[in-house]
Amino acid sequence: MQNSVYQTPIAQWEQLIRTFLPEDYYQLSGLEQHDPDLYLQILTQFDAFVRETILPLNASGDEEGVSLENDVVTTPKGFKEAYQAYVEQAWPTMDFAEEDGGQGLPKIMSMALDESLGACNLAFKLYTELTRGAAHLLKAHGTDTLKAQYLPKMISGEWTGTMCLTESHCGTDLGLLRTKAKSNGDGSYAISGQKIFITSGEHDLAENIIHMVLARLPDAPAGVKGISLFLVPKYIGVGEGDSATIGDRNTVSVGNVEEKMGIHGSPTCVMNFDQAQGWLVGPENRGLVSMFTMMNLERLSVGMQGLGMGDHARQQALSYAQERLQGRAPAPWKSGDNADPLIHLPQVRASLLDMRVEADALRFIAFEAGLAADFAERHSDTTTREQQQMLLALYTPVVKSALTDYGLSTTLQSQQVFGGHGFIREYGVEQLVRDVRITPIYEGTNGVQALDLISRKIQQNEGKILENLVTDWKAEPACNNDYIEQSFQQYCTELTTTTAHLLDNLSSPEASVLVDAMSMADDFLKLLTYTLCARAHRRLLQANPDQQVVQQHAVWYYQRFASQIPTLASTIKQPSDILATLDDNNL
Amino acid sequence: MQNSVYQTPIAQWEQLIRTFLPEDYYQLSGLEQHDPDLYLQILTQFDAFVRETILPLNASGDEEGVSLENDVVTTPKGFKEAYQAYVEQAWPTMDFAEEDGGQGLPKIMSMALDESLGACNLAFKLYTELTRGAAHLLKAHGTDTLKAQYLPKMISGEWTGTMCLTESHCGTDLGLLRTKAKSNGDGSYAISGQKIFITSGEHDLAENIIHMVLARLPDAPAGVKGISLFLVPKYIGVGEGDSATIGDRNTVSVGNVEEKMGIHGSPTCVMNFDQAQGWLVGPENRGLVSMFTMMNLERLSVGMQGLGMGDHARQQALSYAQERLQGRAPAPWKSGDNADPLIHLPQVRASLLDMRVEADALRFIAFEAGLAADFAERHSDTTTREQQQMLLALYTPVVKSALTDYGLSTTLQSQQVFGGHGFIREYGVEQLVRDVRITPIYEGTNGVQALDLISRKIQQNEGKILENLVTDWKAEPACNNDYIEQSFQQYCTELTTTTAHLLDNLSSPEASVLVDAMSMADDFLKLLTYTLCARAHRRLLQANPDQQVVQQHAVWYYQRFASQIPTLASTIKQPSDILATLDDNNL
Repeated sequence: MQNSVYQTPIAQWEQLIRTFLPEDYYQLSGLEQHDPDLYLQILTQFDAFVRETILPLNASGDEEGVSLENDVVTTPKGFKEAYQAYVEQAWPTMDFAEEDGGQGLPKIMSMALDESLGACNLAFKLYTELTRGAAHLLKAHGTDTLKAQYLPKMISGEWTGTMCLTESHCGTDLGLLRTKAKSNGDGSYAISGQKIFITSGEHDLAENIIHMVLARLPDAPAGVKGISLFLVPKYIGVGEGDSATIGDRNTVSVGNVEEKMGIHGSPTCVMNFDQAQGWLVGPENRGLVSMFTMMNLERLSVGMQGLGMGDHARQQALSYAQERLQGRAPAPWKSGDNADPLIHLPQVRASLLDMRVEADALRFIAFEAGLAADFAERHSDTTTREQQQMLLALYTPVVKSALTDYGLSTTLQSQQVFGGHGFIREYGVEQLVRDVRITPIYEGTNGVQALDLISRKIQQNEGKILENLVTDWKAEPACNNDYIEQSFQQYCTELTTTTAHLLDNLSSPEASVLVDAMSMADDFLKLLTYTLCARAHRRLLQANPDQQVVQQHAVWYYQRFASQIPTLASTIKQPSDILATLDDNNL
Repeated sequence: MQNSVYQTPIAQWEQLIRTFLPEDYYQLSGLEQHDPDLYLQILTQFDAFVRETILPLNASGDEEGVSLENDVVTTPKGFKEAYQAYVEQAWPTMDFAEEDGGQGLPKIMSMALDESLGACNLAFKLYTELTRGAAHLLKAHGTDTLKAQYLPKMISGEWTGTMCLTESHCGTDLGLLRTKAKSNGDGSYAISGQKIFITSGEHDLAENIIHMVLARLPDAPAGVKGISLFLVPKYIGVGEGDSATIGDRNTVSVGNVEEKMGIHGSPTCVMNFDQAQGWLVGPENRGLVSMFTMMNLERLSVGMQGLGMGDHARQQALSYAQERLQGRAPAPWKSGDNADPLIHLPQVRASLLDMRVEADALRFIAFEAGLAADFAERHSDTTTREQQQMLLALYTPVVKSALTDYGLSTTLQSQQVFGGHGFIREYGVEQLVRDVRITPIYEGTNGVQALDLISRKIQQNEGKILENLVTDWKAEPACNNDYIEQSFQQYCTELTTTTAHLLDNLSSPEASVLVDAMSMADDFLKLLTYTLCARAHRRLLQANPDQQVVQQHAVWYYQRFASQIPTLASTIKQPSDILATLDDNNL
């Protein structure tokens, strides 16, 4: 195996942090002592840690995979030591509040770290990611007793966590779930059922695993309004806080580990709950609402995984293209009869630049989503918090979908730069493709995200949030490039008229019109992404008016990507009753 | 593992064969006794054979893979018996001339069979595909002695073949190759060097393997004009014709078998030639020209692999979408509180229809390329043969690229329909993704195809071939849909003006203009593909003016795909000096 050249894009994050943080950012609650230097120092330390300790386990973890024998899941060689180092260096605590034993870093920072860790080793990251999510969930909705018992060890990473939602007959459609919970009469419940696709459901990295499980109480209403959330530990916790230890083994066990396309170092488990002891988290029948507070945070993290892995593949392709001599470049690079580096072949060059300008714009979008999250959580004013929460809600499906789509398309595009060498294991790019492939699927497929965007995030507020956003953009100072300015104004108009059209059709009483509108959800998400990216490049140019490279990157993005906006808009607006009238057997 | 629902699209091929064969097709040399019923009978038999015998080995072959021990490559369980059945039923002989022991089927038929076999099991197909290619190469360029000794057993499939081109430092850029050939003074040569990425380089399916090897003679000119082609058998052939047997073991051996993303049932070998005995095929220093006659045929086959695997995944997704209950469909399908089949969710429905209308159009293009090949080979008139050869040359890079791009995008899109179930092994879709991933890479990456299109196939004849093609389309009768007609005329104009623009820029003395034009090769290939597909749907509608489904498919294709033509055209025409002026480190 060749060593990876991956580096965290610290310079890109530095530019975002130094240039685009609102003036009042460090007045947010808990951030008063923070500054850019602190953030960059943490990013640099984390980059060193993940490249030294986690990245080298990526290929070997994929090769070896996890194994299940006698109810024990063994993780790949080195994962245990790396996880221990991760815990010892307190990385799991980063984004928890200081009063909970955390380090109180804001969302923009946890997203930057998510990108970096996701890029280096997605299989490893998943152990930490679900633990963090489960801990946030417990923190937000658990009783004081439960929190005292389980939270500190989950925040420290000594105990890990899972999310147990999916059953074999229902994933997206959780209303159908059948796992049962029955009161034991002592404040605890007996949970019975089978869950599938449970990431880190069983493993040997930690002494205890805390499952957050959706189940139905007796006589619960049908559908999504009858789902409750339970904490079901592998071992019952004894004691409290940092000195909590493990007690009795609970009746939850791993039934199988899935064979899958990628993330071989991460066990995707079938979990059996056989009258397992659990405790209610949050109110009865409101489990799905609680779970969503966690899932929305996970969706941002999954987006960062996609961006990171895409950027990892891009960096590998760039390095390979500089070294590999193959083919004859045209002037101005032609070097006589010898072969030239791939990077001087125009198509390869265009492909590399495509990947670069997309990455920079998508990272800008992620950063803005992180800002909205920080303001929504930490601002002193309720109205501001609510507005920023709405903005975050709008951004979330875009970050999840657009960044994971980028991850998939860019790992594939990088693989193509390697030619035959991209299909074999040696350079690790084929693994990045196999691993990143899950990101547009899990935490709600990208199709589900697009539907969430057009319905909950646009239709439910009659398009107001998006309208305000476009108004804000238009009020931003112009950049010094007429082509960019004129195009951007046009794209804003396309977005506005297309949104209005979509809103009309989504409330149409005509079945075929509604079907047509819903089928356009993915295209609308794409249109919004292109517009957000176009705005990102305009912002970058506004901030660096004299840098020719920034100009060129912006123009390239507009010519190659944003230019597709008008066609997308007219495709969405074109009326069609075909989907509603065509027989299933003619699909 | 779930059983695959794949079926060869016989109805689609039947429509093409019954409706779109030119009147004089059965007057072509060798086809005088053929008719549609014969072709459909063969397709039906082949479909039964591959689904019973080859398809069941697809998942198990992937799971088990090939193994190398003591210079012996063992193929997955069942491959040997299946290969034997394939040979016994004379399928390898299908597209060879009757005087060579073949069955004289035309190219349109071998392409249809290629689609079907590629769809069922790409790893298995590769053993047969390279054998066929090597045999055609030997037939076209070998001496009578060599042909008598090796050809019959290769045509029958009893001996298999390889193409040995790539070396570790050169794939696309064969001018760099270093393998040496030295005369032994007895009419044979001693071949020394190492080749990589040799499909079926060593295996246990056949008693002999015939390598077609590119190497340099002493004092050969540098670069591509100093490459000669040699036949290097694993065992020296003894005797002639059907009674040929194997003699001495030659000094060619497998050095390694690559670990790769997919096609695990096919050994991708490092082959070492250590003074191996070989015989010259074709004139000295003209080996690459000979090899290209074979590679061009292979490129069509690779296109069919992509289409077949994409269609396989599409059929799986369609079946799953009909059975899987998940989510709530809108009216007109809403069934109350229960979950509805995925196929009634508008986005899933749109995705399935996208895949369908693309497949039908691309199969039409492949069929037209096959027709050109048949006319180029079998027509009595030299001028017609030459014209059709030029047309085939134009079609070849499009078929190779567009159909393999379809294979990749459609296996991915189908995987998305399956959600989490698409990422695990159970339904086989993730294997289709991993297997099809090689098709846009091998036989010349799709980028190389696009460059071949704009340079050799367009620039070299000043765009005449394409111009004539567009003129022919315009002379075809109009269809009964105004939207299709008007759009199609517009797309033809876009294609014409974009081609003219590209031709101007490709001959520009300005380095930055030339770089810009070359970088647009992939976009131009895409534009041409959309236009060809738009024409295909127009033709299908002309032939079936009263079928509403054909109308709807055509309109859907135009609204969703062809509508991107104007934007692609303007992107290609937009002048940009960015690629030529941007520093490498700003990519």
